[in-house]
Amino acid sequence: MKKKELGQLLGRMTVAEKVGQLLQLAPMFYKGTITKGEITGPMAEMGITAEISERAGSVLGSATAIEMIAIQEAYLETNRLGIPLIFMADVVHGYKTIFPIPLAIGATWDVEAAEKMAAVSAKEATAAGLQVTFSPMVDLVRDPRWGRVMESTGEDPHLNSEFAASFVRGYQGDPELLSENYEKMAACVKHFAAYGAAEAGREYNTVDMSTRELYQNYLPAYVAALEAGSKLVMTAFNVVDGVPATGNEWLMRDVLRDELGFDGVLISDWGAVKEIINHGTAADSAEAAEQALRAGVDIEMMTTCYLENLEGMIADGTADVALVDEAVMRILELKNDVGLFEDPYRGLKGKQDRQTDILSAEHRDSAREIAADAMVLLKNVDGLLPLAVDTKIALVGPLAKTQDVLGAWSWLGDKEDAISVHDGMAKQFTQVDVAGAADTENVTEAEIAEMVRVAKDADVIVLALGESADRSGEANSIATIRLPETQYAMIEAIRAVGKPVVTVLFNGRPLDLHGLIEASDALVEAWFPGTEAGNAVADILAGRVNPNGKLPMSFPYTTGQIPVYYNHLNTGRPVDAADAQEHYVSQYIDIPNQPLFDFGFGLSYTTFAYTDLKISSDIITKSDTLTISVTVTNTGEVAGKEVVALYLQDLVGKVSRPRKELKRFSKIDLAPGEARVVTFCLTEEDLRYYKPNLDFTSDPGDFKLFIGADLEATFCLV
Amino acid sequence: MKKKELGQLLGRMTVAEKVGQLLQLAPMFYKGTITKGEITGPMAEMGITAEISERAGSVLGSATAIEMIAIQEAYLETNRLGIPLIFMADVVHGYKTIFPIPLAIGATWDVEAAEKMAAVSAKEATAAGLQVTFSPMVDLVRDPRWGRVMESTGEDPHLNSEFAASFVRGYQGDPELLSENYEKMAACVKHFAAYGAAEAGREYNTVDMSTRELYQNYLPAYVAALEAGSKLVMTAFNVVDGVPATGNEWLMRDVLRDELGFDGVLISDWGAVKEIINHGTAADSAEAAEQALRAGVDIEMMTTCYLENLEGMIADGTADVALVDEAVMRILELKNDVGLFEDPYRGLKGKQDRQTDILSAEHRDSAREIAADAMVLLKNVDGLLPLAVDTKIALVGPLAKTQDVLGAWSWLGDKEDAISVHDGMAKQFTQVDVAGAADTENVTEAEIAEMVRVAKDADVIVLALGESADRSGEANSIATIRLPETQYAMIEAIRAVGKPVVTVLFNGRPLDLHGLIEASDALVEAWFPGTEAGNAVADILAGRVNPNGKLPMSFPYTTGQIPVYYNHLNTGRPVDAADAQEHYVSQYIDIPNQPLFDFGFGLSYTTFAYTDLKISSDIITKSDTLTISVTVTNTGEVAGKEVVALYLQDLVGKVSRPRKELKRFSKIDLAPGEARVVTFCLTEEDLRYYKPNLDFTSDPGDFKLFIGADLEATFCLV
Repeated sequence: MKKKELGQLLGRMTVAEKVGQLLQLAPMFYKGTITKGEITGPMAEMGITAEISERAGSVLGSATAIEMIAIQEAYLETNRLGIPLIFMADVVHGYKTIFPIPLAIGATWDVEAAEKMAAVSAKEATAAGLQVTFSPMVDLVRDPRWGRVMESTGEDPHLNSEFAASFVRGYQGDPELLSENYEKMAACVKHFAAYGAAEAGREYNTVDMSTRELYQNYLPAYVAALEAGSKLVMTAFNVVDGVPATGNEWLMRDVLRDELGFDGVLISDWGAVKEIINHGTAADSAEAAEQALRAGVDIEMMTTCYLENLEGMIADGTADVALVDEAVMRILELKNDVGLFEDPYRGLKGKQDRQTDILSAEHRDSAREIAADAMVLLKNVDGLLPLAVDTKIALVGPLAKTQDVLGAWSWLGDKEDAISVHDGMAKQFTQVDVAGAADTENVTEAEIAEMVRVAKDADVIVLALGESADRSGEANSIATIRLPETQYAMIEAIRAVGKPVVTVLFNGRPLDLHGLIEASDALVEAWFPGTEAGNAVADILAGRVNPNGKLPMSFPYTTGQIPVYYNHLNTGRPVDAADAQEHYVSQYIDIPNQPLFDFGFGLSYTTFAYTDLKISSDIITKSDTLTISVTVTNTGEVAGKEVVALYLQDLVGKVSRPRKELKRFSKIDLAPGEARVVTFCLTEEDLRYYKPNLDFTSDPGDFKLFIGADLEATFCLV
Repeated sequence: MKKKELGQLLGRMTVAEKVGQLLQLAPMFYKGTITKGEITGPMAEMGITAEISERAGSVLGSATAIEMIAIQEAYLETNRLGIPLIFMADVVHGYKTIFPIPLAIGATWDVEAAEKMAAVSAKEATAAGLQVTFSPMVDLVRDPRWGRVMESTGEDPHLNSEFAASFVRGYQGDPELLSENYEKMAACVKHFAAYGAAEAGREYNTVDMSTRELYQNYLPAYVAALEAGSKLVMTAFNVVDGVPATGNEWLMRDVLRDELGFDGVLISDWGAVKEIINHGTAADSAEAAEQALRAGVDIEMMTTCYLENLEGMIADGTADVALVDEAVMRILELKNDVGLFEDPYRGLKGKQDRQTDILSAEHRDSAREIAADAMVLLKNVDGLLPLAVDTKIALVGPLAKTQDVLGAWSWLGDKEDAISVHDGMAKQFTQVDVAGAADTENVTEAEIAEMVRVAKDADVIVLALGESADRSGEANSIATIRLPETQYAMIEAIRAVGKPVVTVLFNGRPLDLHGLIEASDALVEAWFPGTEAGNAVADILAGRVNPNGKLPMSFPYTTGQIPVYYNHLNTGRPVDAADAQEHYVSQYIDIPNQPLFDFGFGLSYTTFAYTDLKISSDIITKSDTLTISVTVTNTGEVAGKEVVALYLQDLVGKVSRPRKELKRFSKIDLAPGEARVVTFCLTEEDLRYYKPNLDFTSDPGDFKLFIGADLEATFCLV
């Protein structure tokens, strides 16, 4: 449909029909519904009548093509103007073929992998009748207590930005072709803004930071997603400078719409419009509606503040119908952009052919490859890993046999489709004995005894443990970032057997690994690997894949070190200053300042040498491009992938600048003995940062760059 | 000296003499020095010559009248214009008579006690030749990992403000009479600003917050100290919006000087001018000097950026001599304000009479009373406390016999003067057996065995334990807020004896008390009580003083709950909302949201009933005064003090407002059966808060007030 026609359509709509477009409901509210979605919001007294659902604008959480078709058909039978519903859902790391959790994808440092994941997700989700995914979540995270760190790509603005753009590209393809490309779907970047900074890591908690910090570290990934063309933005649950994001006119109008130029659909998170009342900036649902509308929230998800109030407010002049028209127009444009006016079923009606796209062998292969590339080798004493395929292995622990390896936010995935560690290892190793445990939160003495019995017969113990998938994700904040307490006795018992221990760790967040890391001779951080979990674990343990993941988020030394992140400021009294005092420096007296494992850390089965750092000039002007190259050589015996990363330090700024900041990275694959020259380019734009007045400019002066473990160079911006 | 004469004096000064006035050095740099101060800064290569010290302006950390007189005499012999030195030091909670740490003073909720402490400190410190104390420290604190929480009065802006003003009044008396009143000294409020918000509780670490939050919660206590007339302000070590406070022109010129109207001396913290270089906003000492001078820092403490650079910069026009003149004039005014031009020895020369003021019986009595009133009874099962004086007591634990009870920042106090718990208890109880331990960080098995042996013979065990005094205070951040690990085995062994256990806890910060609280039948939070520690503990245990302290800072449930504070926002999904979901609410899945002990918590040996809450109107206009009264009755058997506190909640604001905020409090003393009507007044001014644009205004609408455990009322601002 042409934009002009959309305008005409809008002109024919009643106020009630317009307000209906702003409402998003779960499938259960619609005629034709066949399944129930995951219910998380305040729905009991919503008072949705059939008449209302006949003009509601969009559907949240529909699961299959059959359901979509049924709802859409029934809807279009009664909708006066024939405006189709649009179907949205949280397809976060896969639809049926579940990929590793986003934090794990962050660990790949491979933006093509992220794009691939998103493309596969889109292919499956569109085959299931969805047109919008509430992904990517690009919230910067520094607090592993927060359960949703699993849904982010980590603590770095640049890494997050690169991933944000990749996800959007993968979901949407060319945004201009979305109306025809039925294997692509609209992306919705979330949660605008700074949701990842919930105080004390407690879900939905207060966020407070300087506006400069917001711009410098938290906004870039959203901006990257917008620049990649994300069709939608979702609001955050938190306050931003004291005002709920969902009713925050400054944030949504001044920043998102005006400064960042976003003209797509802004959707509230689940119930977030009504929650403005709990935040205490609105007295009732009318005020909440008024604030959200004024902020430019187009779709209200799962609460009815708009529905209850806007007609009356427009009638009595307390709400501006022009704001409603704007919102409706954006929604109509979105529906048009994904081609619903031409085909409300996007090619699915009457044929189930595209069901074959779901959980295909090709998709599973992608998921397996990415899952393996996401795993991070944290320890490997004396080259214990990889294991020979005929090693006599005792596979033990609560994650040994379970299919609960998909991770949170994979609600359309089926555990039954998942490969357990045991299933995966049994395919690649010839002698695997197994002793599991039913519950990560309660490993029984009998289970431990059986593990010990099996372990005694083996040459190597593979200990699969960690969190259950529902210990991270939304509303799963934990105060103490340790393994479930029950597992420490098991670890001790297994260690006491005296055999080499290879630990495979499943978790949705950085954990304090003390007690586990010492008991392990090798430790593979597997995250939640998704459907192909067991195969990917086996690939790593057998050396079919050389571990190449790098941590996208620091692993704190202990809970009390939170927040700890690599791109921190120097402080006035850094521990490592040339003139540092012994005592009066910025430190703890009970633990070191460094995290247990740093951002970017990850071992390999081979070794890489960095040599010959070259910089095209030690002076850069505002119009120059600086070229930096380094030779990376695989100096070991096996092929391997390496993340080559360039960090920068601005030595003197108008504000204190980070010790180092990631500016470029590239993942390369080198055969044994192979050398490659990796080249990066920097311009003055890369040297800009936010001043307290929010000017985004650079300062003349010296910069230091770091590549590899110990190469550095200095250049000067003139 | 008259202001006009000061101007003439300034006119006669050379640039070198002016710059000299801006420099503060430790006694060791001066002729006539007799002691060495506590050396904490970068002094090795300062290159201070005799010629420089002959024109330096002030002395940091002189300890006695004899030393002051010797230095001042030698100085005035060579100083061309006869401008006397001014002597400053950290007299934080007492000079020789050490009072409880400021956090404990906060627990008294007794602003007269604070004023008394400051008055005694001033009397002793001035008798020892000091004219300025670097106190009060009024930094708002929410993170007990930070060692300097011991130096603050806690987490509440209102409580901190009231104490800030009291301390200043106590030190200074009438600021106009300071030149004649030789028993008073100038106060220096610190650390401007927001030093208490060091990230992750790590000393000297980065601070980041919204400007609105800075104004709303962090600035009020500094403002209160300024309104009370504090003569000096000290800069903070941290950055504020990315710019080091000590070089932060916005903070120091726009906010401190222009907005808050401060025209006294702004002094850097130790070395903080030079540390601007480490912060990375200055390339060298010249830039650091330029930034600090531009920000209006008058005195550079213990580094020489001004000294090295200002003369040259003035000569070549890169620094404005007018800024130096301003700074010098403020310093001269301060010296004049404390009467040094009339008598550079403030009455001490030639007579040592005032030495009798130091550690007098009267001062010790005050310290004892305040120490007891600061203690907080956290648990008292079945009225175990108070103990009859003839109870057969086993006093055990590492704090039983030690005199290390003064707390940090008491460098002029002598442990030898302190009363240990054992000494104090032996005076009030007739049967006390004791078994101590030499080291809080290493309680030996032999020591535990002896404790157990003694405990077995007793009817009640008094377990004195906690932190050593040097585990809190500056540069003593701990990541895990637990007791030293060694003490848990002791606690277990003592508990196993099976006798009632009364724990007396010494500590400089809120701790996670799990493991201790369960093992104790009664628990007295004693903080660091100061010189009269043992007497005050005995007063509480014997019931000579009925415990009346209330926590000025929340005690977290566990380290991972940090920051936790009472005046938090509601969030969009509070756990206790009427429509709250079971799972998708703001909470942890492993611990509760509430701290183990709340702000304001504290038990008594008696009980109080709150009845008859009256409010003069349920409507208030901008010109009204609302009168709120409540009847408080001592319903128990013994006399006791009670803190009556009024909290307010602004139900709807332009920003999200705290669940409740302390607005008024009053400490009353009631005989058994006695009732008193406590009255508070509120006006519209009390309802103001900061909007994102920093407007400080109120909004019409409903407010809720809370008094006691369960009384509340609502009123409306129209």
